[in-house]
Amino acid sequence: MTIEPRPRVLTGDRPTGPLHLGHYFGSLQNRVRLQAEGAELFVVIPDYQVLTDRDVADRLAEYVEELLLDYLAVGIDAERAVIFTHSSVPALNQLLLPFLSLISTAELQRNPTVKDEIAHSRQSQVSGLMLTYPVHQAADILFCKAALVPVGQDQLPHLEVARTIARRFNARYPGGASPLFPEPQALLSALPMLLGTDGGKMSKSRGNAIALGANEDETARLLRGAKTDTERRITFDPLHRPEVASLLQLAALCQIRAPQEVAEDIGDGGASALKELVTEVVNEHLRPIRRRRAELTGDRGHLREVLARGNARANEVAQATLAEVTAAMGMRY
Amino acid sequence: MTIEPRPRVLTGDRPTGPLHLGHYFGSLQNRVRLQAEGAELFVVIPDYQVLTDRDVADRLAEYVEELLLDYLAVGIDAERAVIFTHSSVPALNQLLLPFLSLISTAELQRNPTVKDEIAHSRQSQVSGLMLTYPVHQAADILFCKAALVPVGQDQLPHLEVARTIARRFNARYPGGASPLFPEPQALLSALPMLLGTDGGKMSKSRGNAIALGANEDETARLLRGAKTDTERRITFDPLHRPEVASLLQLAALCQIRAPQEVAEDIGDGGASALKELVTEVVNEHLRPIRRRRAELTGDRGHLREVLARGNARANEVAQATLAEVTAAMGMRY
Repeated sequence: MTIEPRPRVLTGDRPTGPLHLGHYFGSLQNRVRLQAEGAELFVVIPDYQVLTDRDVADRLAEYVEELLLDYLAVGIDAERAVIFTHSSVPALNQLLLPFLSLISTAELQRNPTVKDEIAHSRQSQVSGLMLTYPVHQAADILFCKAALVPVGQDQLPHLEVARTIARRFNARYPGGASPLFPEPQALLSALPMLLGTDGGKMSKSRGNAIALGANEDETARLLRGAKTDTERRITFDPLHRPEVASLLQLAALCQIRAPQEVAEDIGDGGASALKELVTEVVNEHLRPIRRRRAELTGDRGHLREVLARGNARANEVAQATLAEVTAAMGMRY
Repeated sequence: MTIEPRPRVLTGDRPTGPLHLGHYFGSLQNRVRLQAEGAELFVVIPDYQVLTDRDVADRLAEYVEELLLDYLAVGIDAERAVIFTHSSVPALNQLLLPFLSLISTAELQRNPTVKDEIAHSRQSQVSGLMLTYPVHQAADILFCKAALVPVGQDQLPHLEVARTIARRFNARYPGGASPLFPEPQALLSALPMLLGTDGGKMSKSRGNAIALGANEDETARLLRGAKTDTERRITFDPLHRPEVASLLQLAALCQIRAPQEVAEDIGDGGASALKELVTEVVNEHLRPIRRRRAELTGDRGHLREVLARGNARANEVAQATLAEVTAAMGMRY
């Protein structure tokens, strides 16, 4: 009898603050589901990637802790998942060197991910770190030979660089019978269209997002102030009533039913009834998560232990891959 | 009583084949002198940097061994110097990440080193590895906090990037009382103007260079075929008689006297007398080096041991620096 290894899934979040409902329904829930289906989750916290943002870099330790709390609270199993910080895995980062040799400067410069990075950065100049960002991501994905990478449609170019590098490495350094790097597959996820409470893109820095760790009163306050419209009859019409549709979507996600049904239940109750319902179901849905999060908040020793264990496991995996890589390149003296 | 640490000197050679007389008089002799004066030599063999040259990459293990033989033969003391390969020190390479954040893509693109790299490469495209080359060099220099880096005039821009990164890191992450990275100083060496036997730049790949490890007959044959001129009177005139001047220089370096004196000794003996003399003094000078090299050639176990010890020491130093760097950046969770 052979034991099939669990397929590896690479995910992660930048340490820029606590996660919110957008992250939860867009990504975290999916990770927990993949874990339940038997996947081995690798969750990278790319701390090097936020270095250039001084405000973030100054609160790094705090933000990493927030992520750990969110992960454990939503049900990522620290016993089975590998949660690690970039800065703790030198062997992973060393893959940058062979990988950088397999991609041209021109390819890096026309990469949509890099362009996106540049547009979103608060820097006036493009740093060498930003330019080489897709190669860092390729190292994250390939060091653990991830079979699957959950991405949204707009993130497909990220993954394509990793796939290209895997192919080029395998072709340039053909080793034994099987290629060293399996080509990672995209796991396209249909992201729910959740807007921030101001009707814009949900974002922590805009103060329009409900953090997983927020308390029930904060949640109620944010939702009470959410932008809607003046029509009394509540209908699910994402095109013409995006703010109302987003709230319906949110309630539906919490109740695991269709947003149209939620709308029918409210009927002529108007925005205030809608907000009341959303507040209730969001708080209800998050209650066990928040309870677990609150319990964990006091236990820094446990958080440190979880990260130390993840880092140790990531190092083990990275060292094994790096040994294969240097052997394939003839770097055995 | 405080024990002054020995000043560290960073040097190295790409593993592209055995070293020749140009390397010996231009660099190796100087390293041995610095070692005798009490410096701690760090000698990096940047094996990742030759990856893009397929012909070289395919013979990497052989070329690394040739370098080790040359180093030990000329008198680099494996007990005191740290000889290591790039690929064996992940913590050194990890410094690339913070360093890449401190330099802009524009700075990389206008760097003379990068332009030089591109011009000398046999690649049609500029790889990400080439573009980021000065940052790799900065990591080599700064990981061991080298005080001195021996360079020729034309290599000053290399060192300037390392100095810039050191300054920017210290300013961006002010730690304790003293800055984390001392700014490395250039040790400008007056390179002897030694030409290849064809009158061109001395280069292994052009077959116009006398390898340290060549035997006496090969040396004689190469020098017999050296380009000179038809004037019988031998004079030291680098401007108008560069090939003759180069041979005089070579003899003078071996005999530790002035090339003008060598020229006077030969007088009207013409090129053949000059070549005879040069052959004799080169072979004599290299005899003990070649004897040691021949002895070491059979002892692969010793070579492996030397490299393993150097790699271990380099890892120790790199891990200590990386720990300081991540602490300064607040990456302690």
